[in-house]
Amino acid sequence: MATILQFDFPYPGPWGEEGARALKDLAESIAAEPGLVWKVWTENEAEGIAGGIYCFADEPSALAYRDMHSARLASFGVTDIRAKVFDVNEGLSAITNFKIA
Amino acid sequence: MATILQFDFPYPGPWGEEGARALKDLAESIAAEPGLVWKVWTENEAEGIAGGIYCFADEPSALAYRDMHSARLASFGVTDIRAKVFDVNEGLSAITNFKIA
Repeated sequence: MATILQFDFPYPGPWGEEGARALKDLAESIAAEPGLVWKVWTENEAEGIAGGIYCFADEPSALAYRDMHSARLASFGVTDIRAKVFDVNEGLSAITNFKIA
Repeated sequence: MATILQFDFPYPGPWGEEGARALKDLAESIAAEPGLVWKVWTENEAEGIAGGIYCFADEPSALAYRDMHSARLASFGVTDIRAKVFDVNEGLSAITNFKIA
């Protein structure tokens, strides 16, 4: 069953196109993670926070990635990491036009 | 620019198909909100939390919805509501297979 993983944490930049250049290799690595359907990269420069919403094909893949990525972020010096895993309510999500991929 | 809105909050159920029946009318109303591209309904019964990830076509629509929905949830008796608005980093999100719709 599709599983949503939310990450957010304090982030000092870089943002936008500069961030895209700096994190391109990481993004290519994440695109190859087992079970990943997609990740949207989220950022709020005014609040100094960033993160991502991930759609995984199944919960075990999401949980394994959550643990690995939390440790990786910590190794980058990131603190106050918030990571939450959710099931998708498929009936309600269909009404509100959500498609997994 | 596409804007992501994250909501989550403590939730006692109903979950899954029972929740889908109970909240169908609300979902139909949300589907008609100005600027909404999609909402995925999220739930974690083990942790007793639920919410949603929304994709809006622009930030003003996301902010207006955030304020309205926060007040609506409060009127339902929901407390400890977490609502965060984010820009999409389009370059990185494209690498990780995210498509707006």
